[in-house]
Amino acid sequence: MVQERIDNLNKPKGSLGRLESLALQVALVQHTLTPSLEHPCHILFGGDHGIEREGVSVSPREVTWQQMKNYGRGGGGVNMFCRQHGFNLRVVDVGVDYDFDPAECPHIINCKIAHGTRNFLHEEAMTEREWQQALAVGAAQVDECRAEGCNVISLGEMGIGNTSPSSILMHLLLDIPLAECVGAGSGLDATGVQHKRDVLQAAVDRFRGEWPAGCPVPTLVRSFAGLEMAAAIGAMLRAAEHRMLILVDGFIMTSCMLAASRMDEAVMDYAVFGHCGDEGGHRRMLCAMKAEPLLSLGLRLGEGTGALCAYPLVQSAVNMLNEMDTFSHARITKYF
Amino acid sequence: MVQERIDNLNKPKGSLGRLESLALQVALVQHTLTPSLEHPCHILFGGDHGIEREGVSVSPREVTWQQMKNYGRGGGGVNMFCRQHGFNLRVVDVGVDYDFDPAECPHIINCKIAHGTRNFLHEEAMTEREWQQALAVGAAQVDECRAEGCNVISLGEMGIGNTSPSSILMHLLLDIPLAECVGAGSGLDATGVQHKRDVLQAAVDRFRGEWPAGCPVPTLVRSFAGLEMAAAIGAMLRAAEHRMLILVDGFIMTSCMLAASRMDEAVMDYAVFGHCGDEGGHRRMLCAMKAEPLLSLGLRLGEGTGALCAYPLVQSAVNMLNEMDTFSHARITKYF
Repeated sequence: MVQERIDNLNKPKGSLGRLESLALQVALVQHTLTPSLEHPCHILFGGDHGIEREGVSVSPREVTWQQMKNYGRGGGGVNMFCRQHGFNLRVVDVGVDYDFDPAECPHIINCKIAHGTRNFLHEEAMTEREWQQALAVGAAQVDECRAEGCNVISLGEMGIGNTSPSSILMHLLLDIPLAECVGAGSGLDATGVQHKRDVLQAAVDRFRGEWPAGCPVPTLVRSFAGLEMAAAIGAMLRAAEHRMLILVDGFIMTSCMLAASRMDEAVMDYAVFGHCGDEGGHRRMLCAMKAEPLLSLGLRLGEGTGALCAYPLVQSAVNMLNEMDTFSHARITKYF
Repeated sequence: MVQERIDNLNKPKGSLGRLESLALQVALVQHTLTPSLEHPCHILFGGDHGIEREGVSVSPREVTWQQMKNYGRGGGGVNMFCRQHGFNLRVVDVGVDYDFDPAECPHIINCKIAHGTRNFLHEEAMTEREWQQALAVGAAQVDECRAEGCNVISLGEMGIGNTSPSSILMHLLLDIPLAECVGAGSGLDATGVQHKRDVLQAAVDRFRGEWPAGCPVPTLVRSFAGLEMAAAIGAMLRAAEHRMLILVDGFIMTSCMLAASRMDEAVMDYAVFGHCGDEGGHRRMLCAMKAEPLLSLGLRLGEGTGALCAYPLVQSAVNMLNEMDTFSHARITKYF
């Protein structure tokens, strides 16, 4: 019925391309021919990573808290995109290795579970209890958004080192060779990428030693993921329960959506993939998930900026359903 | 100097990808580190095509005037995108085969030169005089926009049959085999595409018979183009003189930009290519022009919708220059 409506709008059938499939998705998510996007919210979770100690990132750990402060102050890329597209921004500290002064940083929401994860080269990144706490933090943030009338969320992250766990999730959940899952992150050179691959391979070998016969998905995820990633997974799962649209950003958030979809397949119905980045393996991961990203602009800033950039297209898809004339109403020869 | 500023913004170098090269372009066009986008205007030129009589389009000729009325009334795809992105819309009749009643259609600007072009299978599409008039119509529209404070224009078209002249311009100006320049337009099947190719080949053969030794570009263009295309070319050339940004839409507007760039190379400096469509040859033409389109969403509605959809990205690029902190100001470790 939604498809019929779309086909009868005043345009050659299919001529709005990807916007048409997007309109169909939004209408199905909201169960209506006249969907609306209300109080969009971008939640940016921050956390540090034990694996960063192994030199897998070109950026030093302190950049996580420095950037979180910057977002709290309004000076980051994500702030700019949120202002442009009318998103309420929530900057949430789940696991940053720094104690923010609430007086100095009133806009950072303190949900700290730990000062970063453990080093997954040697042990599980987080305990079962930390994992549950992080999932709950994400879910609670979404509940608060929902209570404010929000029906579309976008998710982003800040965590130096977090392409590493994302690569491992991609490798283990999709069975794609590790080498094809590892990229340059925020700017490693070829030697750096090789070192990162070696470290991640060793971590995977350790894990396989502990779980020779397969492992439940949640255990696998908490063995590697960051607290900010676990919170994002919790947010995705809860957003799907609320039938909210979920804008998915780049490599890291895509890996979280992958993990979330293995915990609840239905969550993919709510996911709109904003951007395909250059990070090694992102296109491959999207393809394996049958995800069709809206943009491909070579962004690799993180913070959720790729998802935010794509938002006007979601608005266009919704406008199409609500504002465009049908052929019959416009009295135009229906030429196809 | 602009590049230096972009590199020192608070983000890993190059991490905003295509938005960075776009910001550079806008800053160079406006000669400032703090560009702004003022009173954006979308000009939609309409005209009919003699070649349509040869059955080269799946859509009947009457759709041109029906759609023009629809745009005038606010019910088209282009109206929706203009509203969403804050564009003033000018719907300009340059050569539609219908006499609009000004009382019924007060929003259609009457600059009619003829009731469509001649059939270029047998003769030149327009006379030298009509060509000059159409260029002047386009230039005058841009002058009026400029007088209203506009510094960014977007161009669109409505003209059943106008992929045919666009294919020929691509073929003759880029020396790409005609078969690779011809696509399905608004929905031809394989037999229809073959017929279109045969007709266009015959038209090119006739033209080559008349101009065995090469032909000045303007003469070549007016031999095939529509009046709405000539007006768009005039608009592009004048916009470049005013140092205005020019958003270029799909296959037809790209072919007009190609023609304009052969008349004045500098016009390409002002061109932002919004969208790469599915129309046979569009990607190839963009590539030959070294143009990097912002979007690729499978749109094939025309009207300039691909250019309009890309506008928020241009805004993001401008916001980046104006709103994003520099590393030094944000006191963040510049990590490379």
